[in-house]
Amino acid sequence: MAVLISLDIGGTSIRAASYPLIGEEPVQHFKSTTSTPGETVFDRVCQSIRQVSPTGSEIKAIGVATAGPLDPHTGFIFDAPNIPGWKDFPLGERLQQEFHVPVVVENDANMAAYGEWKFGAGVGHHDLLYLTISTGIGAGVISSDVLISGCRGLGAELGHVTVIPDGPLCSCGKRGHLEAISSGPAIVSYYLQLLKEGGKSTPLNNVLLSARDVSLAAQAGDLLARKAFQYAGSHLGLALAGFIHIFNPSIIILGGGVSQSGVLLTDPMMERMRLEVMEPNYLKDLQVLPSKLGDDAGLVGILAFTRQTLS
Amino acid sequence: MAVLISLDIGGTSIRAASYPLIGEEPVQHFKSTTSTPGETVFDRVCQSIRQVSPTGSEIKAIGVATAGPLDPHTGFIFDAPNIPGWKDFPLGERLQQEFHVPVVVENDANMAAYGEWKFGAGVGHHDLLYLTISTGIGAGVISSDVLISGCRGLGAELGHVTVIPDGPLCSCGKRGHLEAISSGPAIVSYYLQLLKEGGKSTPLNNVLLSARDVSLAAQAGDLLARKAFQYAGSHLGLALAGFIHIFNPSIIILGGGVSQSGVLLTDPMMERMRLEVMEPNYLKDLQVLPSKLGDDAGLVGILAFTRQTLS
Repeated sequence: MAVLISLDIGGTSIRAASYPLIGEEPVQHFKSTTSTPGETVFDRVCQSIRQVSPTGSEIKAIGVATAGPLDPHTGFIFDAPNIPGWKDFPLGERLQQEFHVPVVVENDANMAAYGEWKFGAGVGHHDLLYLTISTGIGAGVISSDVLISGCRGLGAELGHVTVIPDGPLCSCGKRGHLEAISSGPAIVSYYLQLLKEGGKSTPLNNVLLSARDVSLAAQAGDLLARKAFQYAGSHLGLALAGFIHIFNPSIIILGGGVSQSGVLLTDPMMERMRLEVMEPNYLKDLQVLPSKLGDDAGLVGILAFTRQTLS
Repeated sequence: MAVLISLDIGGTSIRAASYPLIGEEPVQHFKSTTSTPGETVFDRVCQSIRQVSPTGSEIKAIGVATAGPLDPHTGFIFDAPNIPGWKDFPLGERLQQEFHVPVVVENDANMAAYGEWKFGAGVGHHDLLYLTISTGIGAGVISSDVLISGCRGLGAELGHVTVIPDGPLCSCGKRGHLEAISSGPAIVSYYLQLLKEGGKSTPLNNVLLSARDVSLAAQAGDLLARKAFQYAGSHLGLALAGFIHIFNPSIIILGGGVSQSGVLLTDPMMERMRLEVMEPNYLKDLQVLPSKLGDDAGLVGILAFTRQTLS
């Protein structure tokens, strides 16, 4: 059989799936961690592709949604701060050399936005914001039915907008970006900072503390952990108000692991967002919803985008 | 003769011009202040239209570029903070009742962006940011050849994005927006604040101090006045870096009276912008240019937009 391969490469995990030429039901689906000892991320990507290719199948094309910034025209990764070794990495070219089929590379969050717009929570909307909050904060924007991309495909990096000037260091090397304040690692950092400053908390004994650990502690009533989510959520709401003034969307979709902490994050976010929006008309008809496709948004997004690009 | 009327209504002045059905050379052009004692702004608008209508001419349509936020579908002004009395004001309807011709209403900065894109500094670009810095900070964005508008036409309000959380009060009622830090009145406020804090300056004796007064003092070497422009320019550059991450434009066009202060504003702006952009590829091929059409950008923008809308 002939298949299309979709990949979604994030800072934490790689998802791969094979699809028939028509339809969104995967033939095979595979997930693994992004970093594996003794193996490059590119090797892991190639293995994932083979893993989901049914025996005797013919790969027609590969679509890759991956962490950027990248050039979607050439599939060249400029500098993916969350993926080890991917600085000036010609991903599109390398995959083409390996598999000898057309390769489409796009920003992972753009493709998750595209997936939600085509098949998920955003169906029927013309102005959509999508944010994925996990290791980093990625985003994708549809404005008047057009994917915001920019002249070099580097647009829609809503996670890299300054929220607190001279604030915490971001993975990109700059300071005070939304990603440095409201992403998973940022929540952990802020929690640890509060602890260090003498804040009282149920001791969290995990050596590798994750945002999920902080989230569980907060759900169990730990006030310091709650404060960390309050801080992240409130600043996320402040940033959203700015994005609302910029894009006037009819829907904001939240994906990513951290957004699964639910009201811990979204209550302070919504409160601050409503407070900071300058004119009530921006909020009329505005929906704020969780991702419908969850972790598979990027996979079906790049699938639809690859089909459209190669059609 | 048959004419199209264009109006550009800002916080400081109203511009009006009549144009032939084809071509961008005005038949008549008129400018006046927006607020006149004993007269509503709407009366002033109607008078301006009559002023530029040649004797015996037939008005075919009226296009109005005005301060928002507004609903471009109905010509309803929600709340224009810089125009006295325009809150929940049905401008489109009122003009239609008065002149009995089709009326197109759009955001003034959007139309200045549109004008620069069609006829000015932005010709040939596909991804363009336009900012006008004067009484307020307005903006218009073209992304992939599409005017960013949003589901209710309220988008592209780049002047109302938070730059300093809990910062100075903005004309819109919220705090720390770009407009509250880098607009003309904001520069004056910051200068006065520095004076009040004991800063040494050549005394500026004007009762109604304007950003132009501060600019002239800075050009004459006054260090406090320079500091005020440095502050406004640097924060403008910080905000631009965020907009660059969001839109990845190939050109940024600066209009408005305050931007005519030149390097006083643009030197600290460019320095901060370059410092805050996370990835050098955003800056490759990025042009930052002054408005080519100057104060007439909005007039020819709404002219082109009206023609397109009614064609």
